[in-house]
Amino acid sequence: MKSAILSVGTELLFGQITNSNSVFLSSQLNNLGVDVMYHYTVGDNPKRLAEMIRQAFTDCDLIITTGGLGPTQDDLTKEIAAEVMHDDLVLNENILSELESYFKRSNREMTDNNKKQAYLPTRAVLFDNNAGTAPGFALEDEGKIIICLPGPPREMTRMFEQKVKPYLLKKSECVIYYKMLRTFGIGESMLETELKQWIDGQTDPTLATYAKEGEACLRITSKRKTSEEAKTAVDDMIKKVNQKIGKFVFSYDDEELYEVVGKKLIDKNISVSCAESCTGGLFAQTLTEVSGISAVFDRGIVTYSNRAKIEELGVRAETLEKFGAVSEETAIEMAEGLKRKVGSRLCISVTGIAGPEGGTEEKPVGLVYICALLDDRRVSREFKIRDTGRKWNRNYTMLCMMDMVNHLIDEI
Amino acid sequence: MKSAILSVGTELLFGQITNSNSVFLSSQLNNLGVDVMYHYTVGDNPKRLAEMIRQAFTDCDLIITTGGLGPTQDDLTKEIAAEVMHDDLVLNENILSELESYFKRSNREMTDNNKKQAYLPTRAVLFDNNAGTAPGFALEDEGKIIICLPGPPREMTRMFEQKVKPYLLKKSECVIYYKMLRTFGIGESMLETELKQWIDGQTDPTLATYAKEGEACLRITSKRKTSEEAKTAVDDMIKKVNQKIGKFVFSYDDEELYEVVGKKLIDKNISVSCAESCTGGLFAQTLTEVSGISAVFDRGIVTYSNRAKIEELGVRAETLEKFGAVSEETAIEMAEGLKRKVGSRLCISVTGIAGPEGGTEEKPVGLVYICALLDDRRVSREFKIRDTGRKWNRNYTMLCMMDMVNHLIDEI
Repeated sequence: MKSAILSVGTELLFGQITNSNSVFLSSQLNNLGVDVMYHYTVGDNPKRLAEMIRQAFTDCDLIITTGGLGPTQDDLTKEIAAEVMHDDLVLNENILSELESYFKRSNREMTDNNKKQAYLPTRAVLFDNNAGTAPGFALEDEGKIIICLPGPPREMTRMFEQKVKPYLLKKSECVIYYKMLRTFGIGESMLETELKQWIDGQTDPTLATYAKEGEACLRITSKRKTSEEAKTAVDDMIKKVNQKIGKFVFSYDDEELYEVVGKKLIDKNISVSCAESCTGGLFAQTLTEVSGISAVFDRGIVTYSNRAKIEELGVRAETLEKFGAVSEETAIEMAEGLKRKVGSRLCISVTGIAGPEGGTEEKPVGLVYICALLDDRRVSREFKIRDTGRKWNRNYTMLCMMDMVNHLIDEI
Repeated sequence: MKSAILSVGTELLFGQITNSNSVFLSSQLNNLGVDVMYHYTVGDNPKRLAEMIRQAFTDCDLIITTGGLGPTQDDLTKEIAAEVMHDDLVLNENILSELESYFKRSNREMTDNNKKQAYLPTRAVLFDNNAGTAPGFALEDEGKIIICLPGPPREMTRMFEQKVKPYLLKKSECVIYYKMLRTFGIGESMLETELKQWIDGQTDPTLATYAKEGEACLRITSKRKTSEEAKTAVDDMIKKVNQKIGKFVFSYDDEELYEVVGKKLIDKNISVSCAESCTGGLFAQTLTEVSGISAVFDRGIVTYSNRAKIEELGVRAETLEKFGAVSEETAIEMAEGLKRKVGSRLCISVTGIAGPEGGTEEKPVGLVYICALLDDRRVSREFKIRDTGRKWNRNYTMLCMMDMVNHLIDEI
């Protein structure tokens, strides 16, 4: 089944609201094996709305609309849906009395315009609204289906899960299963090159690559008669893919890198402390996003000034003088000083130039040194990060730190 | 000018990614006085993409596309845009050599598919990509304009602000001037209530309130023939508004609270250090987003464990024992210990329960204590933050710290 999602509401076109409904519905429909071909957004304008519905039906069998079911004058979705599907609106006495008792219960006066919500297409399959007043519905005509849902995400998502999903499941033929692999250290184009043989022969499972800030993702999707078949197809492909790019994959379940690292530290009970210069606490802050990390995270020290590096971590003044604050030597002394001071099993340090100021020809913005100590292992590395702004440079530096820790943990 | 925003990418139709590009572009275009009529999203399918562009041009003069400019085979936006606008793609030697030197600089091999990015329509007005490899462009044909931008938000937003905005400004007829006031400590509904008299009578300037995480914003907009007229209208309204809500406003120029605080610290040359528990380095990290902060920021210490609080800050074991790590007493000892140790003029500490675990009936998730010392002043406060998830609780705590510092600096 091919579908389109149509969001109705002028507020969406003003850029005041993120369209979370489309994301939710896309994900839900894909999981039900319904292909989503288009998203459309249109304002509260009857002519354009009708045109868009007709347009979408030229190659879709199913349209789901959100918004425009409310009591006010500019709520027109129902009227237009009925018109396109050759039906009429009639007063539904059940809905009317439900509305009346709803207003009575909540001690509010039912204004006249609320009655509008009780007018529904004669052939509509109704979906109760457990979180608001406007009911949703499905309407079929000549093999096409339109499903009209309320706009507020809380009402829409509930209605979808409780009413629309069972309705659609009856009409669907196959099941979709997918895995999202997350990688670090390989660009999207290189990922595609490595996997070209399987991407090109896309039938089932299909492979698709995506760039994400600092990462490349790979989605492996199978669409089969049963979920077992689909799962097996995806798992088999993962085995093949792993031979090519396995070392770059940090998650097979769409997790963030810091979550993967945080969980490993907790699971293996590895105490951790960090000393940061250019990232200013971003590594500590990100790692402590993981709930339960307090069991292993001891402390983080943001040694921004040279004085702080000397006082807090015992970095030698000569080292700072001779090699500079941004040098491998300083990074190593930071990590080793931290280890001496706090004794955490994992100690990691970073120093670099986040920009926009502070870069020189010899040491440009984006130059970063990271040193990690885990038990008796020591790794230190220079990174030349492409300067794309202070925030991004810092974020990418943090990801490099996480990646280094992730590999280091895997080695023990 | 009437416009449509067209997002290209199968990943959007899978519901894996929220379409933040459409929101950003809608808001930007509205600010420029360009009406946004439609959002469309389509997968990486040339036929459907071409149809959608033609469809959108039936009642729009401008289409902005995002996505599909990359190096891989399914990146087809450029090809389709050229076709619809009756142009051809040719190899742009400048872009090619930029690409080659980019890959050389970052020590990566340039795979063959990357060359694709150097093919561009002959009549294209090019927009450099400062944050990625694929350039954007505008292409005009028979009074219609298509602007093709890369998909990654970081690349797209930069390109829009630096290149597309000036390009579009040249084509617009009237001038929009606006100021975005940012407030902390007053909710959006209260803000609206306070300003109701001016919001209701909206003609010009118009007032619109927005909720932002932890903040309420007020946008004052005027659309006039000249920028002087518009600016005067907005400035006059700001004077009126300030009498009602001035004390909550921290920026009249859409700055972040941390930027305001960072700049004040730098301008007044106030040295600063911080000691964080529940925020895990978020305050240090956020403050050090400000470029040039190294002139005043000495260090941050993330004392997550009790041991770290004792060792790093000299918090007394009895205090932790008697009042708990999350207490006003501990917050004060953290700040005072930090002051003794490092001597920065401004020392700020925080301790609290970020959740989801760790809350009790007596000390629930969201309970936070902040203490700030500036020269001889001391402020300490208890906050009961409404628990809406770990990430949010931590972020709101950081904002409370910034707000406290902001007011403290203003007092001296």
